[in-house]
Amino acid sequence: MPIDRVEPQYFGAGPALLPTDVLKQASADLINFNDIGLGIGEISHRSKDATKVIEDSKQHLKQLMSIPDDYEVFFIQGGGTTGFSSIASNMAAAYLGKTGEMAPGGYLVSGSWSEKAYEEAQRLHIPSKVLFNSKDFNENGKYQDIPEESLWEDKIKNSKFSYVYLCENETVHGIEWPSLPKCITERDDIELVADLSSDILSREIDVTKYGVIMAGAQKNIGLAGLTVYIIKKSILKNIEKATDEQLQEFGIPITPIASYYPTVVKNNSAYNTIPIFTLHVMDLVFKHLIAKGGVPAQQKENEKKAQLLYAALDSHSDFYNLPVAKRVRSNMNAVFTLKDSSLDEKFLKEAEAIKLIGLKGHRSVGGFRASIYNALSVQTVENLAKFISKFAEENA
Amino acid sequence: MPIDRVEPQYFGAGPALLPTDVLKQASADLINFNDIGLGIGEISHRSKDATKVIEDSKQHLKQLMSIPDDYEVFFIQGGGTTGFSSIASNMAAAYLGKTGEMAPGGYLVSGSWSEKAYEEAQRLHIPSKVLFNSKDFNENGKYQDIPEESLWEDKIKNSKFSYVYLCENETVHGIEWPSLPKCITERDDIELVADLSSDILSREIDVTKYGVIMAGAQKNIGLAGLTVYIIKKSILKNIEKATDEQLQEFGIPITPIASYYPTVVKNNSAYNTIPIFTLHVMDLVFKHLIAKGGVPAQQKENEKKAQLLYAALDSHSDFYNLPVAKRVRSNMNAVFTLKDSSLDEKFLKEAEAIKLIGLKGHRSVGGFRASIYNALSVQTVENLAKFISKFAEENA
Repeated sequence: MPIDRVEPQYFGAGPALLPTDVLKQASADLINFNDIGLGIGEISHRSKDATKVIEDSKQHLKQLMSIPDDYEVFFIQGGGTTGFSSIASNMAAAYLGKTGEMAPGGYLVSGSWSEKAYEEAQRLHIPSKVLFNSKDFNENGKYQDIPEESLWEDKIKNSKFSYVYLCENETVHGIEWPSLPKCITERDDIELVADLSSDILSREIDVTKYGVIMAGAQKNIGLAGLTVYIIKKSILKNIEKATDEQLQEFGIPITPIASYYPTVVKNNSAYNTIPIFTLHVMDLVFKHLIAKGGVPAQQKENEKKAQLLYAALDSHSDFYNLPVAKRVRSNMNAVFTLKDSSLDEKFLKEAEAIKLIGLKGHRSVGGFRASIYNALSVQTVENLAKFISKFAEENA
Repeated sequence: MPIDRVEPQYFGAGPALLPTDVLKQASADLINFNDIGLGIGEISHRSKDATKVIEDSKQHLKQLMSIPDDYEVFFIQGGGTTGFSSIASNMAAAYLGKTGEMAPGGYLVSGSWSEKAYEEAQRLHIPSKVLFNSKDFNENGKYQDIPEESLWEDKIKNSKFSYVYLCENETVHGIEWPSLPKCITERDDIELVADLSSDILSREIDVTKYGVIMAGAQKNIGLAGLTVYIIKKSILKNIEKATDEQLQEFGIPITPIASYYPTVVKNNSAYNTIPIFTLHVMDLVFKHLIAKGGVPAQQKENEKKAQLLYAALDSHSDFYNLPVAKRVRSNMNAVFTLKDSSLDEKFLKEAEAIKLIGLKGHRSVGGFRASIYNALSVQTVENLAKFISKFAEENA
């Protein structure tokens, strides 16, 4: 069978498009890796070849994100959802280990993913509270904006938090933090924990501002099945300091061993069997990005893509509705609706006729969503922008 | 690049060899699945195509294992290690939900994997106790046998257990339960939980004897990254009956949401993003096995392979040492040492020269281990058996 494809114009929200070159290489390596006569998925996770994949992917990510030496990079299975649980229990332990006291985790809720993270902390009975929920700031009760710091910073003043959590980009609602909240990053005593599942490596960030970064692979960096963690080493030490008795006293659940960060790090992400094929694909994405100029080059492309797309929608504002406030529009997921929803089906059908696919909005929001992650080319987004303009002009 | 390979003669313990045909198909589907223009790893886990992969793989496994309708099949990330944690917390909840009381989980420890499972229950402070540890029955304190039921069945008589746990095949030590212990399976009030990570689909079993079957994919059924669960529906209901107050009273930790079995089942294994490529590979393995005659055909092959291998070793018993008692020798992992360990290096080198690879024993046991999972052909094992005889004859 011939293994190739026409470059897909696929705007799905995730699992998402990967670079065709990466998939071709992965496809070959699945059968025979580096001519060892075996596929990369068939070898021991503790073999020389697998260890090199782990080391390489860590090294390439460190290079791409300029991760300083006082941070560790590791990988866990289970996606962001498992991260919601493990962040709450590990970070509560870290605070307990550091201070001997307990304080709630603070959640900045800007969409359904940060909401789910909060709900999981609550479900596990880990002390946690919502510092704001964006919905409360909109008259219609929907996620469409992130409140300015001045509106909620009082909530953290003079208060202690075991950590503060946010999701940088909310894929369902198309809302992205334009920058990190200063009232958090300026507090030395608060560890910022951020979910970068849908915007990691899409723009330059300053890792030193974060205590923990967590990112599921399946949008910008690979296949579903692995989650990247970047953690300040001091937090790892604090997690270990928490005793069973302290955890018990404050009702903090013991983290399952495969998600207990100190154990994962000590075993170089191979305490249990790491899905080495999935990690290899991630490393191929990292190498692909390094070759094309790293994060600055990718960021420039992403900004151009977002600009093209939003410009087309904005210039037909009588026809399209963009629910999200301009200041927090996502560069990864553009959410829009047709003012005349009776044209929805026609829009989708005509888009698909010219191979623009995966545009249907999330079931909870409706309308349309164009996810334009790293692997989507400027050309593809330009094609979509043109269609958006043409459709408006023909159907206005 | 040409994507093909000479059939590997790889005896690694896992991640392990997969059928070359399966890998070739997976390799193509990674780039363009069913001619949809996208790879199977790039589509939404809730899309029509992904849902079909989930349904198909469940259906094919049900067919292969004759799983009755009162059982559910589902998939979770995180391997057996995550299973150790989730089994303990879910099964403790199930017992609590059913009886309103608590009883320990009983562990039948026959090697390092069942030992690790027990240690995790202890680590999570979930009531649990060892019913026997095989090591205690051997003078040298090593894992080399499984004690006869008569030697330990008193431990369970007149006692309650939230579940009883065993690992059917211990890969490190090469020990396999020849049949399930009757003193457990005959007890209606005890749910048997079994780790089948390294022998699932290698031989026919009677699913109705089990409460829960858990199996990491990376030996007989696929790539690392997914774990299969087969669970009695009544257990799911009991887990849900346990209230937070009950769990708190008995100190049973709340299971992280991605491993809480009722939620996973209600969402058809897609509560969080299931690694759909990894599942697709598993389904390809299932279809491959169905095409070759199902489990009975595979079992016949596996018995032949084990017979060939052990016969070669036994017939040179002056040269090779087989530490494991015949009655419990594994049909999946044959462990052996050379009586003269100064020949170890020579043995490995000469084996590798004729492309017999992956034979080194586990670091904790030493010597050699030939893992002969489903994907290894009779011919490959015959080649190894011949080498074993030849090497003994030349070096005796």
